[in-house]
Amino acid sequence: MFLGTQRVNALGRLEIGGCDTLDLAARFGTPLYVMDEALIRSNCCQYRRAFESRLPGSVLAYAGKAFLCLAMCKIMEEEGFWLDVASAGELYTAAKADFPAGRIMMHGNNKSEEELVMALDYGVARIVVDNAWELGILDRMTQERGQTADILLRTTPGIDPHTHKRIRTGQADTKFGLNIHNGAALAAVRQALDCPNIRLKGFHFHIGSQLLDAHTHHEAVRILVDFMREAAGETGYQAEDLNIGGGLGIRYLESHCPPSIDEFSEEIIATLQKALAHRKLKPPRLMQEPGRSIVGEAGTTLYTVGTIKTVPIKEEPGQRTYVAIDGGMSDNPRPQLYEARYEALIAGKAGQEPSELVTVAGKHCETDILIWDIRIQPVRPGDILAVQSTGAYNYAMASNYNRFRRPAAVLVKDGQAEIIIRRESYDDLLLQDGVPERLAGKP
Amino acid sequence: MFLGTQRVNALGRLEIGGCDTLDLAARFGTPLYVMDEALIRSNCCQYRRAFESRLPGSVLAYAGKAFLCLAMCKIMEEEGFWLDVASAGELYTAAKADFPAGRIMMHGNNKSEEELVMALDYGVARIVVDNAWELGILDRMTQERGQTADILLRTTPGIDPHTHKRIRTGQADTKFGLNIHNGAALAAVRQALDCPNIRLKGFHFHIGSQLLDAHTHHEAVRILVDFMREAAGETGYQAEDLNIGGGLGIRYLESHCPPSIDEFSEEIIATLQKALAHRKLKPPRLMQEPGRSIVGEAGTTLYTVGTIKTVPIKEEPGQRTYVAIDGGMSDNPRPQLYEARYEALIAGKAGQEPSELVTVAGKHCETDILIWDIRIQPVRPGDILAVQSTGAYNYAMASNYNRFRRPAAVLVKDGQAEIIIRRESYDDLLLQDGVPERLAGKP
Repeated sequence: MFLGTQRVNALGRLEIGGCDTLDLAARFGTPLYVMDEALIRSNCCQYRRAFESRLPGSVLAYAGKAFLCLAMCKIMEEEGFWLDVASAGELYTAAKADFPAGRIMMHGNNKSEEELVMALDYGVARIVVDNAWELGILDRMTQERGQTADILLRTTPGIDPHTHKRIRTGQADTKFGLNIHNGAALAAVRQALDCPNIRLKGFHFHIGSQLLDAHTHHEAVRILVDFMREAAGETGYQAEDLNIGGGLGIRYLESHCPPSIDEFSEEIIATLQKALAHRKLKPPRLMQEPGRSIVGEAGTTLYTVGTIKTVPIKEEPGQRTYVAIDGGMSDNPRPQLYEARYEALIAGKAGQEPSELVTVAGKHCETDILIWDIRIQPVRPGDILAVQSTGAYNYAMASNYNRFRRPAAVLVKDGQAEIIIRRESYDDLLLQDGVPERLAGKP
Repeated sequence: MFLGTQRVNALGRLEIGGCDTLDLAARFGTPLYVMDEALIRSNCCQYRRAFESRLPGSVLAYAGKAFLCLAMCKIMEEEGFWLDVASAGELYTAAKADFPAGRIMMHGNNKSEEELVMALDYGVARIVVDNAWELGILDRMTQERGQTADILLRTTPGIDPHTHKRIRTGQADTKFGLNIHNGAALAAVRQALDCPNIRLKGFHFHIGSQLLDAHTHHEAVRILVDFMREAAGETGYQAEDLNIGGGLGIRYLESHCPPSIDEFSEEIIATLQKALAHRKLKPPRLMQEPGRSIVGEAGTTLYTVGTIKTVPIKEEPGQRTYVAIDGGMSDNPRPQLYEARYEALIAGKAGQEPSELVTVAGKHCETDILIWDIRIQPVRPGDILAVQSTGAYNYAMASNYNRFRRPAAVLVKDGQAEIIIRRESYDDLLLQDGVPERLAGKP
């Protein structure tokens, strides 16, 4: 499985963005996140083309939660994307990158007053209001400040997507959004229309993440269009925007076969247009929020192999070979969180057949297995292991567990590699630590 | 369930270390880790008493991975504990706290050369060697440096404890240690004895974490004593130290009933003494490495309640009330990682009966439920929710997911509260971010 600009170079080594991964490991150290800029931009381009060709004027917003840093903000700005932020810290990052406020959407199921103030101060384009309580706070704030706010209401279509339970969000039993079926969403429309300084611009839904087909989107889009019809009939309100969230899955394994960006977009847009025509509604502006499908396959983590150990096991084939790498659950918690699986290869032997069955283990003080039972090229201590599709929810979720320093990330393109996230230093680990006076002296 | 110095004060509020938790939340903000110093020290005292009274000279080492910062190093030093570190960063923290090198044990299943150099430079008391490859590196290093190293060999007794699969470590099928049954451990003894600058001081095992009884320890201790006998018979080597790891569980739920520190110690020591007598071996110095049982129950996380939302569900009782707090999986990933469960209460109503059935949700962009279906006191937005037993593997595993700032931690004692970990600032989130020149300008 070679993704984006990944290829085997003349030396038989894995190359990404024209950079030899062994050179990258030697220059920047490991663990190292390598981000393939050409693939990120190509994914953006595919999304733009898919939506522009079918529904000109559609908005594409990058879901920052997948992987956000100043450089990603800059790339998304250049690509003409909006930015979906979901916390004060994500908004702060966007602001520090001078990301245009008029292209920012502010999310969150439990926004604090501080976050709402930040969103109003920065003048974000849309606040996606999750619930009636938040709407009440925003109503008061906008009146007190003599300021208007453009909002979407986050609705819950009550659909259960077929994905990991922790990244399902569209079902009725969820912390997210306003339930359509029990009338909470319609009540919020009435409430919003009564707020003098709030301009209701439309609706939002998001049914889940890492979806490998558009089936649940079809149903959700139909439910949303029915709801738009109902809201229009009950209140006269016509939605201008319809934000259908994100969710397109990526290839973690060679056997994964998610729809292409174009196929996924085509299916959803066709369903939307049909439903709108059926309900005789004016088409709203479509908004989409891809995160993982922009950046996931564009990331590869390079590790250095250390201990290799073969141990007896009860099951066939009677032994297991543990290959330990110099990272683990602190730089990629997804195997622990979601039973996520990954492909990997020995970077320096990328041209060789994968022949050895191994289990890749991290170096934390628990059983942090990164990949169970994978066939890779013959592996020796000191080899560089490249784990693919780590661009989303890896650095974003990284921790300092065991006081590991979080890795650096480099952006590679056309043979150039530049640091976009520097490796933490040992002193960085102590930045927050303080010792009360009475403990500071020798006992 | 009230732990340590937790009590309901005259105002009907939760108090810890003589501090009103509502005052703490107002003064330091939320989320906030509150660490009960008296309970930490009392746990240390119980361990000392349990071991000193039965096996004088035993070594107690705090397992830093559970919760490490400069202040914890200072407390452990005052308590006479050794420190178990498992990475360069943990060792660096100990060094910056001037923790005595002669009381440090260095762990790790895949120590890097850099880590071994740091351990030798600092002159740690024991390097716990995990495998033959590491032993080879250490042999070369100690000869090159003309320095000796005192080591333990980490053995794998091949026992499967009854705990979560990710925190089992004693079974044969593990990345950790030297298997006893297949001869790897004995081979390493011979190898170590042949290393001119390595002094083999004894053996180590660790069978798992959050154990609620000592059953598997009995078996492991017997296996280790048999192995000591075998090693003595085969090589003449007599172990001076026997490190039995950690593992004692704590109360996360009121229904949990782990043995007391004294009961746990009594059982293990009795088994050890019996096995040693049976095998006619001289008693080694016993070493124990408690982490969670020192610090877990001593931590309480304070959150502010925001959105409260009742949604329809299919199951009985037909609806669920989501109470959203201002933290989530970034400050406590254990529910997501281990299906961990917690008790909680409304700090300002701690004296009232828990009457409402709610589900506590985080504020991240996924279904980060902190506690499913818990009965708590009547809850309103703005209330302070206190989640108990969060002292271990919470801050240690915290992330900046969604660019949340990691919380502060305060040490409370006798009505005083002092910051031992300061809250991250928004600018802290950007410390590692860099923008390549070509992306820095406006597009």
